[in-house]
Amino acid sequence: MRAVEWNPDAPAVRVVDQRCLPVSLVQRDLRSVEEVAQAIADMSVRGAPTIGATAAFGLALAAHGTELASEAAVWDEIARARIVLQSARPTAVNLVWALEHVARRVHQARPGSLVALREAFVSEAQRLADDEVARNRAIGRHGAELLADGDTVIHHCHTGGLAAVDFGTALGILRTAHEQGKRLHVLVDETRPRLQGARLTAWELGQLGIPYEIISDSAAGHFLQRGEVQAALVGADRVAANGDVANKVGTYMLALAAAANHVPFYSAFPTSTVDLACADGGSIPIEERPAEEVLRLTLDGQPIAPAGSRARNPAFDVTPNALITALVTEAGVLRPPFGPALRRVTTEGMPA
Amino acid sequence: MRAVEWNPDAPAVRVVDQRCLPVSLVQRDLRSVEEVAQAIADMSVRGAPTIGATAAFGLALAAHGTELASEAAVWDEIARARIVLQSARPTAVNLVWALEHVARRVHQARPGSLVALREAFVSEAQRLADDEVARNRAIGRHGAELLADGDTVIHHCHTGGLAAVDFGTALGILRTAHEQGKRLHVLVDETRPRLQGARLTAWELGQLGIPYEIISDSAAGHFLQRGEVQAALVGADRVAANGDVANKVGTYMLALAAAANHVPFYSAFPTSTVDLACADGGSIPIEERPAEEVLRLTLDGQPIAPAGSRARNPAFDVTPNALITALVTEAGVLRPPFGPALRRVTTEGMPA
Repeated sequence: MRAVEWNPDAPAVRVVDQRCLPVSLVQRDLRSVEEVAQAIADMSVRGAPTIGATAAFGLALAAHGTELASEAAVWDEIARARIVLQSARPTAVNLVWALEHVARRVHQARPGSLVALREAFVSEAQRLADDEVARNRAIGRHGAELLADGDTVIHHCHTGGLAAVDFGTALGILRTAHEQGKRLHVLVDETRPRLQGARLTAWELGQLGIPYEIISDSAAGHFLQRGEVQAALVGADRVAANGDVANKVGTYMLALAAAANHVPFYSAFPTSTVDLACADGGSIPIEERPAEEVLRLTLDGQPIAPAGSRARNPAFDVTPNALITALVTEAGVLRPPFGPALRRVTTEGMPA
Repeated sequence: MRAVEWNPDAPAVRVVDQRCLPVSLVQRDLRSVEEVAQAIADMSVRGAPTIGATAAFGLALAAHGTELASEAAVWDEIARARIVLQSARPTAVNLVWALEHVARRVHQARPGSLVALREAFVSEAQRLADDEVARNRAIGRHGAELLADGDTVIHHCHTGGLAAVDFGTALGILRTAHEQGKRLHVLVDETRPRLQGARLTAWELGQLGIPYEIISDSAAGHFLQRGEVQAALVGADRVAANGDVANKVGTYMLALAAAANHVPFYSAFPTSTVDLACADGGSIPIEERPAEEVLRLTLDGQPIAPAGSRARNPAFDVTPNALITALVTEAGVLRPPFGPALRRVTTEGMPA
């Protein structure tokens, strides 16, 4: 099962509702562009590559509007849908990239009829999703070489198949190394406030049969300091031209702790995550999500904060390139200096 | 109201049950040494100075055992109680220190009767508690000089009156600066897994009228990186001879992030927290608490991890002295090198 698929019968974008795990595995049909945007915004659908593919299928859904009587009307609706979808979340660049990529490719294909135009949006979104999975498998192959038999790896947030259409990025590396017979142990950062690590990464590792233990995010430094960890492994939501990585909030503190203890820190992502227009991490927009996400968790059934408390809730942070040992993309493992390497793989390595 | 008091009528050790906040402020009478040890172990009573004072009153409770017919029987029961109490939690050195301190002082006072012996244990425990509060006020005065009007301060765990008998250590610094008219803003690390920041620090800051916002622990680095924070302020559970600080897990990662962003990092504690027998942080025992604390939180009423998940749950970590700008004790603000300064204040500065 993929994190996102096209359902031609409805038509609809069929997604796994990631909010329901680990309790239940639920698929949901999104039947309008607004529903797709909402599912991205409320994190029913999350993970940079999955967000991109979901937005791409959202364009296919837009093109299927029954009220659209001409190719021109479809393109008008596509323009409107791109605005609605690209504002759903600000940090992951894959969202904007996927919308541009699919629209450009359909435009270049010059489909000759209304039916062909609609089908072209579906097939280009499907191709983008398929390409993501192929890229993930390449990331897995390259990244698995960084891990040795017996390694304990610390992982932040969730980068598995659900986050990346299928197979996963950073988690795909663990999966590949595991399939190669390397015995791994994963310390799973629970990843507050939404607990993607405890809920999703733990679930996927369990499915794969990879042993893990969940830790509070702030305990990562302790285990690194005690010499219990051989590698830190994360994904990315947007990578600047110099290799600064914007990723789920907490990544930066993990990278600091890894560097302080001479433990390699790896960020794995498809090249669609690179934004050469951002010179460094300082120019990457960081989403701040509702304070409610920090405040609403309950402890033994009781609220965790005094009534009326305020909270801050940045969803991502920026890890400076100096803290990163290597970047892992489908084009290979990149070492510092990252700037030239990223320019090379984003021009040579991008899908045609 | 103090975090811990002697209730002569029961007799009992009356404590605020810190597990009930912020929902309700509940006092509870502990009527046996075993109940006192259990309350420390299950963190009904927590915070290094409060743990020490509670254990001291626990000795007074032991001395009041109605079955003890002689002074020798009392001393036998004290010896047993010390073993029970000192094993309740391993990291905070105040626990062992308080037990030794009270027993030594009563022994030196040579009370002349069974009644006088019992009263001596109460009065020495009371004196220890009073001394803690006086030390906290001195810590507050010294530490407030480190903060300026308009500062935003990031704070980890809980160091308020409930954690330190009354007034607080690091939070006492914020309180003192606030009473001096300095306008402060506090970013409150929620402090997973038990959420002492979101539950207790937020509650005490609200009582004091100091503005705050709660953040995920892993978001601290983001705010430090963005230049929004002027100081990081924590307590301590045990301080090694070289100034390495063992404190609530997550302190180390906060200190790394502060250092990386040239933000001063302060640890505040009474000198009873210094353990000169530990040369450095590596020899401080770190408690690992039940995995259940990490796993049992619920998100929207659902469990946060797959059934059967394992977790790791170190309760403290060690922050190397190189990451610490200053140590704040009742004897003043100590600057590096910390070793000589700590030796000086623990010999000159200890209460008589």
